[in-house]
Amino acid sequence: MRDIFHDELEAINEDLLRMCGLVKEAMADATSALLNSDLQLAEKVIAADDAIDAIQHDLDNRSINLMARQQPVASDLRNLVSTLRISADLERMGDLAHHVAKTARMRFPNSAVPELLKPLFIDMDRTAAALVEKLSTVVQYKDTARALELDKDDDAMDDLHRKLIGALLSDDWSFGIETAIDMTLLGRYYERFGDHAVSVANRVYFTVTGEFISRD
Amino acid sequence: MRDIFHDELEAINEDLLRMCGLVKEAMADATSALLNSDLQLAEKVIAADDAIDAIQHDLDNRSINLMARQQPVASDLRNLVSTLRISADLERMGDLAHHVAKTARMRFPNSAVPELLKPLFIDMDRTAAALVEKLSTVVQYKDTARALELDKDDDAMDDLHRKLIGALLSDDWSFGIETAIDMTLLGRYYERFGDHAVSVANRVYFTVTGEFISRD
Repeated sequence: MRDIFHDELEAINEDLLRMCGLVKEAMADATSALLNSDLQLAEKVIAADDAIDAIQHDLDNRSINLMARQQPVASDLRNLVSTLRISADLERMGDLAHHVAKTARMRFPNSAVPELLKPLFIDMDRTAAALVEKLSTVVQYKDTARALELDKDDDAMDDLHRKLIGALLSDDWSFGIETAIDMTLLGRYYERFGDHAVSVANRVYFTVTGEFISRD
Repeated sequence: MRDIFHDELEAINEDLLRMCGLVKEAMADATSALLNSDLQLAEKVIAADDAIDAIQHDLDNRSINLMARQQPVASDLRNLVSTLRISADLERMGDLAHHVAKTARMRFPNSAVPELLKPLFIDMDRTAAALVEKLSTVVQYKDTARALELDKDDDAMDDLHRKLIGALLSDDWSFGIETAIDMTLLGRYYERFGDHAVSVANRVYFTVTGEFISRD
């Protein structure tokens, strides 16, 4: 009995890891579409979001099914409930990449992002990629030390977000209101992407230790 | 055995209903704080968010505990898993009210919202209140007919959101970039608040019928 349970839990965990990979790719592609006005790539990200949603659906069904059949308790149950939470966060990260891609598509053939601000978006994209990269390790190896680091790593995203808002508010902002709206929403998408990565890391930490990471 | 299970499930459902009430009050107070530059009310909403988070934590523990002790299957298990999802959505709705209140506090003693746009925010607030009002009925009575209505009701919020963006983009926008940023984010908070209400309704529908409401 126990072996079937842990085999299936392992398979579920592999799919969570696969979701991490897909979400990372989606955000990288969405940023590239955004900065290079690449309509084809934007469409690819938008279409790929269905695949991420489908994995989440499937994972949910399998997790609930496994609960019903194997009736886990204690840490096994906690583990399985966590997979439901983690897949929901990863699905949402996919949505946020999807939003970035939709903004790219909406402004095509122009770029939503003024040249001046592109370096900031490249930095946000790199930060997002680094967060998901570390998150993959956290998910794969239940690495609580790295899970604890993620919250701090995400501060870099918050700093970049603040810089972006600072640029919008500077006296020499000359790109008009529509671009300011785009920047505000795009900044929020990247910031929330980071938040969800932290949320997954916290969830893994809780699963392993039974303790919540305290946050302010 | 079954009776204890259903008693506890009923108690959990009552707490979900209580969360609906708190979230509704939080958004109403946050809007009032925003439109009347009421710092005290803003602080009240910000402080009250901890209470909403605490209920969610408690509900999660009880749900997982109940799963471990009673080992429900089929619709009972589905029900219990749904409560985890629903409480997460409601907690997030509380966060969004909290964000609105923080914007009110940040701009105090000024109002973040220009007089011209206050009627739009009053409409968004009313729409939010109506959504949570109906959602409470859905949660309390597992009312699938009303659950189906919520998605359509939320279209009103999306329309208001579009109107707000339209106002920002009109040629006679004279309130500058900072206010445009505030409006963009505030608009998104109300819009997301509506989305989460729909998500809860969909979840209740799934719990009762075993079918997902198809969305585009």
